[in-house]
Amino acid sequence: MVTITFLPDKKQVKVDKGTDLLTAAIKAGIHIYNSCGGEGVCGRCKIIIKKGQFTTEYSGKLSEKERKKGYVIACRTIPESDLEVFIPENSRLADIEILTGKARQNRLVGLYTPLEEIVEQPMERPGYKFFRYSPLATKIFLKLPKPSSEDRRSDIERLFQEIRNVKNPPVMQMGLANIKKLPSLLRQSNWEITATLGNRNGTTEVVIIEPGDTTNVNFGVALDIGTTTIVAYLVDLNTQSVLAAKACYNPQVDFGEDVITRIIYAEKEEGLERLHHAVIDAVNTLIHNLAKQTNITLDDITSVVSAGNTTMTHLLLKIEPTFIRRSPYVPVIGSVPVIRAAEAGIKIHPRGLLACLPCIGSYIGGDIVAGILASGMDDIKEPALFIDLGTNGEVVIGNRDYYIATSTSAGPCFEGGGLSSGVRAVKGAIQSASIKNGKLVFETIGGYPPSGICGSGAIDAISALFENKIIDRSGKINPGTNSKIRIKEIDGVRAIVLVEAQDSGTGQEIIIDENDIKNVIHSKGAIYTGIETILKESGYAMSDLRYIYIAGGLGTSLNIRSAINIGLLPDLPVERFRFVGNTSIEGALECLLSGEAMERANSISSRMVYLDLSDNPFFMNNYSASLFLPHTELGLFPSVKEWLNSR
Amino acid sequence: MVTITFLPDKKQVKVDKGTDLLTAAIKAGIHIYNSCGGEGVCGRCKIIIKKGQFTTEYSGKLSEKERKKGYVIACRTIPESDLEVFIPENSRLADIEILTGKARQNRLVGLYTPLEEIVEQPMERPGYKFFRYSPLATKIFLKLPKPSSEDRRSDIERLFQEIRNVKNPPVMQMGLANIKKLPSLLRQSNWEITATLGNRNGTTEVVIIEPGDTTNVNFGVALDIGTTTIVAYLVDLNTQSVLAAKACYNPQVDFGEDVITRIIYAEKEEGLERLHHAVIDAVNTLIHNLAKQTNITLDDITSVVSAGNTTMTHLLLKIEPTFIRRSPYVPVIGSVPVIRAAEAGIKIHPRGLLACLPCIGSYIGGDIVAGILASGMDDIKEPALFIDLGTNGEVVIGNRDYYIATSTSAGPCFEGGGLSSGVRAVKGAIQSASIKNGKLVFETIGGYPPSGICGSGAIDAISALFENKIIDRSGKINPGTNSKIRIKEIDGVRAIVLVEAQDSGTGQEIIIDENDIKNVIHSKGAIYTGIETILKESGYAMSDLRYIYIAGGLGTSLNIRSAINIGLLPDLPVERFRFVGNTSIEGALECLLSGEAMERANSISSRMVYLDLSDNPFFMNNYSASLFLPHTELGLFPSVKEWLNSR
Repeated sequence: MVTITFLPDKKQVKVDKGTDLLTAAIKAGIHIYNSCGGEGVCGRCKIIIKKGQFTTEYSGKLSEKERKKGYVIACRTIPESDLEVFIPENSRLADIEILTGKARQNRLVGLYTPLEEIVEQPMERPGYKFFRYSPLATKIFLKLPKPSSEDRRSDIERLFQEIRNVKNPPVMQMGLANIKKLPSLLRQSNWEITATLGNRNGTTEVVIIEPGDTTNVNFGVALDIGTTTIVAYLVDLNTQSVLAAKACYNPQVDFGEDVITRIIYAEKEEGLERLHHAVIDAVNTLIHNLAKQTNITLDDITSVVSAGNTTMTHLLLKIEPTFIRRSPYVPVIGSVPVIRAAEAGIKIHPRGLLACLPCIGSYIGGDIVAGILASGMDDIKEPALFIDLGTNGEVVIGNRDYYIATSTSAGPCFEGGGLSSGVRAVKGAIQSASIKNGKLVFETIGGYPPSGICGSGAIDAISALFENKIIDRSGKINPGTNSKIRIKEIDGVRAIVLVEAQDSGTGQEIIIDENDIKNVIHSKGAIYTGIETILKESGYAMSDLRYIYIAGGLGTSLNIRSAINIGLLPDLPVERFRFVGNTSIEGALECLLSGEAMERANSISSRMVYLDLSDNPFFMNNYSASLFLPHTELGLFPSVKEWLNSR
Repeated sequence: MVTITFLPDKKQVKVDKGTDLLTAAIKAGIHIYNSCGGEGVCGRCKIIIKKGQFTTEYSGKLSEKERKKGYVIACRTIPESDLEVFIPENSRLADIEILTGKARQNRLVGLYTPLEEIVEQPMERPGYKFFRYSPLATKIFLKLPKPSSEDRRSDIERLFQEIRNVKNPPVMQMGLANIKKLPSLLRQSNWEITATLGNRNGTTEVVIIEPGDTTNVNFGVALDIGTTTIVAYLVDLNTQSVLAAKACYNPQVDFGEDVITRIIYAEKEEGLERLHHAVIDAVNTLIHNLAKQTNITLDDITSVVSAGNTTMTHLLLKIEPTFIRRSPYVPVIGSVPVIRAAEAGIKIHPRGLLACLPCIGSYIGGDIVAGILASGMDDIKEPALFIDLGTNGEVVIGNRDYYIATSTSAGPCFEGGGLSSGVRAVKGAIQSASIKNGKLVFETIGGYPPSGICGSGAIDAISALFENKIIDRSGKINPGTNSKIRIKEIDGVRAIVLVEAQDSGTGQEIIIDENDIKNVIHSKGAIYTGIETILKESGYAMSDLRYIYIAGGLGTSLNIRSAINIGLLPDLPVERFRFVGNTSIEGALECLLSGEAMERANSISSRMVYLDLSDNPFFMNNYSASLFLPHTELGLFPSVKEWLNSR
C-alpha cells in the first residue's frame, strides 16, 4: 500500500501499488475529467506529480512542455512509492454555480398564474402555454367528522370520503403502512390531519398522513440529470416558486464522459451498481444542500420529477442500459411509472414520489420531451424546430400534431468539451467574442477574469475570426492577416491566442487551435445535416420553419448571427430564433407543478417518431458537404454569401 | 427452570417455575381450548397432572369427580418440579378435517361455467348468479414482436401494448423490481414470456413476469379466517376447481376465544404482534400443506382472497383493532386495498396479491358480505333473510337494493361451544338426533362413533326432547317421563345422557344438561329477537321473507323443522329455507375467481347498514320474551302451537 496526497486539497488515500492515479483520485472523492473512462484515450486526466516514484505511459496527449513540467495522464500512471500529486484546476470537475436570477424565478412562478391574471404579461415564447396547477404531490388539510353512533364509517372510509369532497379521483389508493398508522394518528390529532395526495399513474394515492395542518410545508425537487451536469431546483409547491437551485457535475464522468462509455462500463461487474450510486449520491447531496440552504428538512420534500436522456434515466433507476447501444437500439423503458423516490435511493420523505419524463427511444430521452414541453413548441400550429446543443445534439421538427426527432452525436464542443481551452458555461467563461478595431474583445459570464471559452464564446469567436478572414472556409488559420491577434504553433498545429497567460484568470493562455475549429465544424455540420435530414422527412422546406428553439448549456445567451455565420443554424430571419436555455429542468419543473404538464409530456412522447441517422443515406451524402464554413453549398446561406462576396 | 412433558405427545418444554401450564403448552406448540385468554374464568383448559409437584387454584369449573382424577385448570396451575401432564382429547384444539366431496367441487366449478352451458343445471339457490371468470391474478402468454429498426419501442411499451391487445385495462402498472428484470428476461426467453396480471384497486398490475409459457400453472388460495376456525381452499385458477381444502383451529384461541378477548389481548405489549403471527403462521401452514399435497410450489400461487369478520381482518393485516370494541365501535378498515400477500406475511409468490372481502362495520365483516354474495341473496328482488349461526350470530335482512344487518352475540352454542359435550362439526360429531320408539337415535358426521354433539345435533336433540315432553317450554328437564332415556344429576344440575360412556368414541358420556339447554335458549332467543328487530326496521312482516339463508359451521345439514320448533328460526314454510353452509369461504372463492364477484361484494357493502342492538329498546323488550321454547308468544309459531296443542 502507498499513500497518495492530492494537492492543493491535501486529501490522502491509501491504495495498492498497482492502482492507477485516476482510480486513486476517485477513491479520494476527487473528480477528474476523463472522457474515455480511464482507457488512456482522451488524455484529459492531466495531473502533475510533485514528489515520489511512479511509472507512466506517455502518449501523444501531452506536449513536450507539459512533460517537462511533470504532467502525466492519471489513468496511465502507477505509483511506486508514496506520492504527492497536484491536480490543475482545468483537470478538475468542480462544483457548478447555477445562475438563477429574480427574473427567472418570477417567470417560473408566472407559469402557473391563473390565465386571467397573466394577460398583461408578455408571452416570452411563441405558443407558450400555462398549465393548470396540480402538483405531483398535493397536501390537503382535513377536519374529519368524528365517529358517533350515527356515523360508524371505518377510519379509511371516513378519510377517503372527506378527500372525495375536495377532489374526486377515479381510483384512490393507500398503502398498508399508512393504514396501520391511521387509527392512532386520527385520534391523537383529534381527527384533524393533513393528507399528501400523489398522482400515481392515473390513480390517486394517499402518500403521507400527518397530524394537524402541515399544508404550508410542501416542497418538491425538479431534476435535470444531464450526462455532464446535474441541476436541481427546490420548489415550494404552494407558492410554485423556485426557492433555490444547485448543480454539480455528474460524477458518472469518473466512468466515462459520454453515454456509450457509461453503458459499456455498466456491463462490467458492479458497473451498473456504481453508476447508479454515483448519480444518486450526487442527487442526494444536491437535495441535502438545497434543504440546508432553505432551512427545510428532507421529510418536507414529498416529490421529485426528473428529466434526463434515456441512458441517464435508466441509470437513475438502476435499469440495465445495455440494449440502448446494441442494434436495434431499444431501451427498457419509455414512459416510466411513478415510483417511490426511496425505491431509487433518493432521500426525501420515505414515502415521497419520483416521476420521470418519458423517453422516446434510445437516443431521444425525457430531456428532449421536457424541452418540447417547456419551449411551448407543442402549442403552435406551424412547423418549428427544436435544437438541443448538447453532446447528443438532438434536433426535433414538428408542430402540435407530430414530431420527427433525431440525435446527431454532435460531440461536447458546445458545452466547452473537445476544445483546448474549453470550459462549461461557468463564471469567467468567455461567452461572447467579437473583433473590434482588429482586436479580439470578450464578455465573460459574471464579468470575471476569463477562465476558458464556453460553447457560445467558441461560436462567436470562430464567426468573428471567419468574418475577419483569420480563418478560411475550411477552418484553416491564415497567419499574418492581423498583427493585433497573436497566432502561434503548438506541436505543428496553428493556434490563435485569445487571452494571454497574464490576462487569464487561470494564469494559462486561452487559445483556439485548428483542431478545435475542426471539432466545431464537425459538430455544427452534424447538427445542420441532421436538421436537413428530418426536414426532408417532414416534407417541409427550411423557410417553412416558423420558430427555431435552441436549448442547451452552451451559455446564458447565444449570438444567433454568429451561429448562422458558421453554418450551425439555418439562414433564417433572426427573429424566428428563440434561445430557451436549459429546457430540461424547466420541463421537469412544469411536470412537478402540474399533472396536466405531465400528461402533455406523455402525449408529446406518443406523437414523436425517432429517425436513426446511422444508416441514413441522405445524412451520409450531405454531411461531408457541411464541413465548410458555413457550408459547401453557399446557396443555403444567402446572407453569409452576401457578406462573403462584399468583403 | 423445570421441564414439562405433555402426554400423549411426549412434547417437552423448559419453563420458569412461575409459568402457568397453559403458557407452557402454547410454548410447546400444543393448542388447548380456552375462552377467556388464560384468565381462569372459562375453565375449558382442563388437563390431568400425572406426575410431579404443583400449586393450583380450584374453581367451580371442576367437578369433585374430575378433581379426584387429577384434573386441574391449566392456566391456574404452576409447576413446582418437573411435571408429566396429560392433555385430554376434549381440551385439545386438534386439526380439522374438511369435508369436501366431488359433488361440492363440481358445483364450485360449475359456478363459472358460461351461462349458455348451465341452463340445464338446477339452480341450487334462489337468485344464484354466475359471475364472469376474471381471477384476481390471471396469467397470459405473450409472444412479443422482436425489436427491429422498424420497431424500436421500449421493452415496457412493447409488453404493455401486447397486453392491451389481449385486454385493455384503463390504468396499467408495473413495479420497478419487474422493470429491472425485463431486459434480460425478454431476451433470454426469446421474447416469449408469461405475464401475471393482477386486479389492483381498479388498475391492472403486471405482478409477475416469467420466461416461456407458464400459464398452465396458476393457483390461488381462498381463505375463511374464522374466530375459531381457519379454512383454506387451494384453487386451480385455470380450471376453476378446488384442488384441496384444509382447515385448522385459529391458534389465536390461545389468547382468547372471542373477538373481544382478542382485542383486549392486542392492546397488551406485543399483543397485536402475537395475534398477527398466530394467524399468519396458521395460514402459512395450511398453504404449505395444500401445496405439498397437490405437489405445487408456493411460487405457483399468485393470489389469495380472504374473508373474515372485522376483527379477524384487522389482525390478519396487523392493524390495531382497539377501536372496534370502544364506543362508537369504529373499525380502521372497511374496504381493504389489494396488497402484496408478502406485506401481511403470507408466503406465496413474493409478488403475489392479497385481497380481503370488505367489512361493513365493527361487528359485520367480510365473512357476512361473502355470505350475501355466495348465497345469491343479492340477486333476488323479494326480501330475504341471511343468518350466520356462528358466535356473533349475524343476521341480515334485505333484497338486491339494500340490507340491514346486525350482530346478536349469540355465543358459541351453534358451533358446539358452551355445551357440556359440545364439539365442532368434525368426524363423529352427532349432527342429527330424533326419538324413535321412545329411544334417542343419532347420526354422526361420517358415521364414526359419537365424539360429542355439534350445533345441528344439539338443535335436533333439544327439539326432539321438547316434542317428547322430556324438557318443558322453559327448558327444564322433566325426570321420569321416559324410561328409555337416562336422566342424571351432576352437581345438582339435571342432565340427559345422550350416549353412554361405553358407546361413545371418546369413552366418556355424551350429555346435554339444563345449563346447555339454557345456553341454547339464550342463543336462539338472541338470534330470533335480532331478526324481529331488523325486520321491524325494514318495514317488512316475517311472512314477506321469500327466502331464509342459513350459513355457519354448525354441521353439514340442519333440520329446519327442529330449528323452528325450538324458536330459533321463524315459523315459515320449510321450502323457503336454504342451508348454505360455510358461505364465507365460498364468497372468498368467488372473489378469487372473479373480479365481478369482488365488485359485487363491494357493492353489497356499500348498500348495507348496521343496526346496533346494544342500545336498541325494541330488542331489549323482546329478548326476554324469546327465552322460552319456542317463544312466550306462541302466536308467532303457529305450526308449533298446533302440535303443542295436539299432543
